[in-house]
Amino acid sequence: MSATASRPMLDPATRDALQRCAHELADAARAAILPHFRSAALDTENKASAGFDPVTVADRAAERAMRDVLVRLRPDDAILGEEYGAQAGSSGLTWVLDPIDGTRAFMSGTPTWGVLIAVVTDGGPVYGLIDQPYMGERFEGGFGVAQLTAPRGISPLSTRPVGGLDQAIVFSTFPEIGTAGERAAFERVSTAARLTRYGMDCYAYGLLALGQIDLVIEAGLQSYDICAPIAVIEAAGGVVTNWQGGPAHNGGQVLAAANPAIHAEALALLAERGA
Amino acid sequence: MSATASRPMLDPATRDALQRCAHELADAARAAILPHFRSAALDTENKASAGFDPVTVADRAAERAMRDVLVRLRPDDAILGEEYGAQAGSSGLTWVLDPIDGTRAFMSGTPTWGVLIAVVTDGGPVYGLIDQPYMGERFEGGFGVAQLTAPRGISPLSTRPVGGLDQAIVFSTFPEIGTAGERAAFERVSTAARLTRYGMDCYAYGLLALGQIDLVIEAGLQSYDICAPIAVIEAAGGVVTNWQGGPAHNGGQVLAAANPAIHAEALALLAERGA
Repeated sequence: MSATASRPMLDPATRDALQRCAHELADAARAAILPHFRSAALDTENKASAGFDPVTVADRAAERAMRDVLVRLRPDDAILGEEYGAQAGSSGLTWVLDPIDGTRAFMSGTPTWGVLIAVVTDGGPVYGLIDQPYMGERFEGGFGVAQLTAPRGISPLSTRPVGGLDQAIVFSTFPEIGTAGERAAFERVSTAARLTRYGMDCYAYGLLALGQIDLVIEAGLQSYDICAPIAVIEAAGGVVTNWQGGPAHNGGQVLAAANPAIHAEALALLAERGA
Repeated sequence: MSATASRPMLDPATRDALQRCAHELADAARAAILPHFRSAALDTENKASAGFDPVTVADRAAERAMRDVLVRLRPDDAILGEEYGAQAGSSGLTWVLDPIDGTRAFMSGTPTWGVLIAVVTDGGPVYGLIDQPYMGERFEGGFGVAQLTAPRGISPLSTRPVGGLDQAIVFSTFPEIGTAGERAAFERVSTAARLTRYGMDCYAYGLLALGQIDLVIEAGLQSYDICAPIAVIEAAGGVVTNWQGGPAHNGGQVLAAANPAIHAEALALLAERGA
């Protein structure tokens, strides 16, 4: 992607330090969240006046735990977190954190939510983790690494070739999210694809990086929803842009694809004007 | 449920033998399936001329492995399996097997498919397992047992009380399955509920038994899709019927609910005639 070209190189020692810090953040989030997952006394509230956007005690505890690690290990880096907002830094690096992506999945006991951690430069995400604490799965991409670490072992992350859109498996949080126009655009792709599945939240990006599915299409995302997936998917050979083909790390409409060919095919259908 | 009243009692030795056999079946299915999950060379084919109904090598290998166990341990029981059909018996008991419920999930690498194993009498299911091999989770219900065995320990299965439909979490394979009338009926419930989630296959029944969600609504099911969930959910205190309030173990339209009150509320909306 063109966005990649403008990303600065970081020296090996800095990359190592960032990578170690990211894993420490993910470990801290796991410890903070797991006691609350599937617990009967889960304290949820409705933070949005319109729509359903639950916040959990676990969400906040995990972001606090991660911020505590950053104060200690990376005090000069900036932070953008879902729960506690932006904090300025002086290093030119920003940690973009979503302590629980998929709070609806979390509330339902489904182990498809995740902790999203990304290192972002002015040019976009350069390193990311998608961590699923209950299953013990950690998708990692960037700084020359692309792998899934799981209880059953370590697997390389590599997106797959696919014959064309008619052979593709598409994932989305739709049909419940998006404007009418966005839904229509999504359905143009969905109708042309082999199979569409819903409800996986950030876990779908991990499956794309693992070479299990071909497209993830979303709308209405925040920056913290997509920065870590971008790093993981690009490290695995995939392509992530917005629906106009531009950088996606600021959120909004997102198209993640296993390879440039399937990306182009889906992008053309998303951009097509309604009859 | 009224169906329960007609179910015969089985003596303790028989119950123990059936329970041990069920776990052996689930272990055999796990061993047959796991080497194929997320493998690149997954051999899928389209067994239905209309619609998308993939069959995998794993599906067939698992059912053969389970039938081999039954020949050895329970030669007089009947078998009804998804892949290899019905086999008569003389004991009055039938093993109802779905080696991989959720083949679309399986094909996508999502760990929400499961192995379904049920012991069924003339009165309906009396014991069942919902096994998720990749996560190592086994939901068990019947013969006085209601528990989830998982890598993180054993949890009791118990459905939850819920204030009313407006507080309920609903799961379904919809919107992609069902007739237009069925979808409209489903949407009457979905619209009245707090949250609707899609795409979990049989795992949703496990979450209902675990007290995480309140309703699962499906249509077009086969007997082997629902017998094991019925046993697990009833053992956990829930209610499973068809959309008319009758027995559900023959498949078709299914309504699974955490308790009788929420069941009645959903049933009334499903049965309501369109304006």
